Amino acid sequence: MLTGNFIVQSTAQRELIDISNEIHLLLQSNDASSGVLFLFNPHTTAGLTINEGADPDVPIDIIKGLEHLVPLQLPYKHLEGNSPAHIMCSLMGSSLIINVSDGRPVLGTWQKIFFGEFDGPRTRKVIWRFLTD
Amino acid sequence: MLTGNFIVQSTAQRELIDISNEIHLLLQSNDASSGVLFLFNPHTTAGLTINEGADPDVPIDIIKGLEHLVPLQLPYKHLEGNSPAHIMCSLMGSSLIINVSDGRPVLGTWQKIFFGEFDGPRTRKVIWRFLTD
Amino acid sequence: MLTGNFIVQSTAQRELIDISNEIHLLLQSNDASSGVLFLFNPHTTAGLTINEGADPDVPIDIIKGLEHLVPLQLPYKHLEGNSPAHIMCSLMGSSLIINVSDGRPVLGTWQKIFFGEFDGPRTRKVIWRFLTD
Repeated sequence: MLTGNFIVQSTAQRELIDISNEIHLLLQSNDASSGVLFLFNPHTTAGLTINEGADPDVPIDIIKGLEHLVPLQLPYKHLEGNSPAHIMCSLMGSSLIINVSDGRPVLGTWQKIFFGEFDGPRTRKVIWRFLTD
Repeated sequence: MLTGNFIVQSTAQRELIDISNEIHLLLQSNDASSGVLFLFNPHTTAGLTINEGADPDVPIDIIKGLEHLVPLQLPYKHLEGNSPAHIMCSLMGSSLIINVSDGRPVLGTWQKIFFGEFDGPRTRKVIWRFLTD
Repeated sequence: MLTGNFIVQSTAQRELIDISNEIHLLLQSNDASSGVLFLFNPHTTAGLTINEGADPDVPIDIIKGLEHLVPLQLPYKHLEGNSPAHIMCSLMGSSLIINVSDGRPVLGTWQKIFFGEFDGPRTRKVIWRFLTD
C-alpha cells in the first residue's frame, strides 16, 4: 500500500481545519485512482472527522457543542490540564476511511474532511495509507 | 473492490434504523463471502453505529441520551438550525468496518448495524465497498 | 486476511484497559509486518479507542469525563439499566484501524490502544483481521 503523511498547522486552541484539499492533492500526486484511503491521527489531543464544509459556521458550531458537552472544569487528575482535549480525541476517533473513485474522495454534497485540533495551536501530522482496488 | 449503495428512508427527526438486513442482502447478492465491508455515510446530519438490536428500547435510549448530552439550544451560528444534528454526526462517525466470514457479518450476539438519522425524516443513502480476502 | 481474537478481562464497571501489548504480540506471532490491522469489538456495552497511555491519569480522566457527559440517571426504557454503557459504546465506536509497519503499530509518541469497558467487570473478546500490504 502507498503511504505518506502531511502537516497540519493549527492556529487556535480548538478548531476544525478543512484538509480536503490535502486529500485531493495526495490522491493526485500518487496516482491513487480507485480504492480506500485510510487516514491516521498520531496525536492524543486531536481527531479526524467528516462533516459539512459548505457553511463555515458548521465547524464553529461543532467546536462550540463539544466545549459544552465535554466538561471543561472537572477535578481531572492529569496535571497537564488538557484532559478535555483527550476526551474530545476519543469522541471524534483517531482514523478515517475514505472511499476513492476516479482519483477523488467519494463524499456527499456537503461533506469535507476535517482535522480536529483540541489543544492547539500546534504543528500536527496526518498519516495516510492507500489501498488500491 | 465491489461497491454499491442502498437507500434508507427515515420517518422521524431522530432515530436509529436497523440496516442489518440490508447488509446481509448485499453480501449475499454480491457473493461476498470473506473479507471486510466498509460502509460510508455521505450525509452530514446522520451517522452509522453498531449497538444492541435485541431490545428495541436500546436504540430509543441511545437517541434519548444523545438529545441530552448534545446541547440542543445553544446560540449556534449555522442558520439552518440543525447544528445539534451535525454534532451527533461527528460523535457517531461517518463509516463502519464490518468483518465478514461465510457470507455473513461477524457480529456479537446482540449487535445490529444502525443508520443514525439526526435531522429527518429524509431519504438517505449508504455507500459500501467490499474488500475480498 | 489473517484473523483471530484475544480475551480482555475487565475488573471494574468502567475502565480503559491498555491492550497495546496484545496488539504487539499478535503482530509478532503472526508475522504481520506491513499492512493495516482491523480491530472489532463484538460487545454493545464496550468500545475501542486510541489515546494517551504515558500518564495513567489520562484514561481515568476519560472515564470520568464520559460519566459526566453521558446522562447516567435519565428515565431510560431498557430494563437492564445499562443504557449509559450502550451510549458510551456508540460514542467510542466498535472498531479501530491501525497502521502497521516493520511488524509494529504506527502510533504517535503518546498513543496506546485501549479497550473501553463500560459495564463490567466482564470477560470480553477483541476480534482482529490483518490486511497485508
